[in-house]
Amino acid sequence: MKKLVVASTSTVHGKGYLEYILPSLSDFFKGVHEILFIPYARPSGLTYEAYTEIAKNAFEKIHIKIIGIHEYLNPIDAINNAKGIFIGGGNTFLLVEQLYSHKLISAIKNVVENGVPYFGTSAGSVVTGITMQNTNDMPIIYPPSFDTFKLLKFNLNCHYLDPDVNSTHMGETRETRIHEFHTLNKIPVLGLREGSWLQVEGSKIILKGKLNSRLFQQNKPTVELPPETDFSFLM
Amino acid sequence: MKKLVVASTSTVHGKGYLEYILPSLSDFFKGVHEILFIPYARPSGLTYEAYTEIAKNAFEKIHIKIIGIHEYLNPIDAINNAKGIFIGGGNTFLLVEQLYSHKLISAIKNVVENGVPYFGTSAGSVVTGITMQNTNDMPIIYPPSFDTFKLLKFNLNCHYLDPDVNSTHMGETRETRIHEFHTLNKIPVLGLREGSWLQVEGSKIILKGKLNSRLFQQNKPTVELPPETDFSFLM
Repeated sequence: MKKLVVASTSTVHGKGYLEYILPSLSDFFKGVHEILFIPYARPSGLTYEAYTEIAKNAFEKIHIKIIGIHEYLNPIDAINNAKGIFIGGGNTFLLVEQLYSHKLISAIKNVVENGVPYFGTSAGSVVTGITMQNTNDMPIIYPPSFDTFKLLKFNLNCHYLDPDVNSTHMGETRETRIHEFHTLNKIPVLGLREGSWLQVEGSKIILKGKLNSRLFQQNKPTVELPPETDFSFLM
Repeated sequence: MKKLVVASTSTVHGKGYLEYILPSLSDFFKGVHEILFIPYARPSGLTYEAYTEIAKNAFEKIHIKIIGIHEYLNPIDAINNAKGIFIGGGNTFLLVEQLYSHKLISAIKNVVENGVPYFGTSAGSVVTGITMQNTNDMPIIYPPSFDTFKLLKFNLNCHYLDPDVNSTHMGETRETRIHEFHTLNKIPVLGLREGSWLQVEGSKIILKGKLNSRLFQQNKPTVELPPETDFSFLM
């Protein structure tokens, strides 16, 4: 049975890395003592080593060992032997380019569909959708495709941000950008606010955290849906 | 001689479409009575017709006729016969995908290098650089390449936005995103604030408007440069 925790962000304002979600992760990874960490998204250009160290320090608090995928000679073997997988945030274009260049898209999809628990934050959550096309990131590298794991049958916009009514800035709001996406694409998009996550167990997809999520669908009114909503109707 | 006006935005807060820059455009397009408008970027999913109408209404005030490229049977002929070109803003991924699908990248580069005056706003400015990789837009469609006109030998970040020091949002700032770009790429990036534009005449590239621009270069300190700076040192 597919098991995922798909989080909008690694860090909420005023708290440490993963601090807000560690108690839930402790339950989610019950019985798992070692997790494979994929640092490919390199937030702020961090090295794989430095990024993995941050993940290690957080998971140590719930007594789980983290090993970076770059520590293995063969990343596909690393995936196939993983007891749990965590893909951290950063730049989604870089993450997707690296996943393709290491031939990991189908490898990861396959083990997660066969029950290896998967945790993603931000870019690591965006890739659980059909495509990466609702990322907020800058296209710093050209990936061979925008298609991702398709573990969810919809797309995610992480760090979802409501329009600032006092802003004088003329750049598009997040909502405008997602509406532009729907002039060309049918894929539903879920805007996940920081501090929210989806808890996926088989066909159940429950919204967790304290905030509503915002669901965008082509040719339908945009709706706000509260915590504990089951999004399996999108699958 | 190459002649371009490369603007961060079409519209500044509290003013009408192009209002802030029309007097400069009137000088820039002196002697040009008809401009070819390229509406491919479709802001908010506007149709080509509706978008062209907006451009028409603005240029009417300075007695210049606008014709949309979609009104021509052959867009390459339209480019080769144009007396002036205006590419409007919207979604940069869509604009670039459409420019490639109509085989216009080299056609436009060629006529502009041969003296046809070019005006761009936002996405229409981003494409004057080496690549579109410093756009803020969502990847709503997959273009065949991120390479653009290379009329400027650097890239642009339009609608450049300073970090909001009061924000509790954990998404990356614009500066962080551009620094991530420079962990992988050498191309200099100029952050153009709204209301700023570059006036290009041959090898001279002068910053216009009231605000500084912010120049990001790989392995160099980021610098603020004032109006009237000549950016030809980047060429």
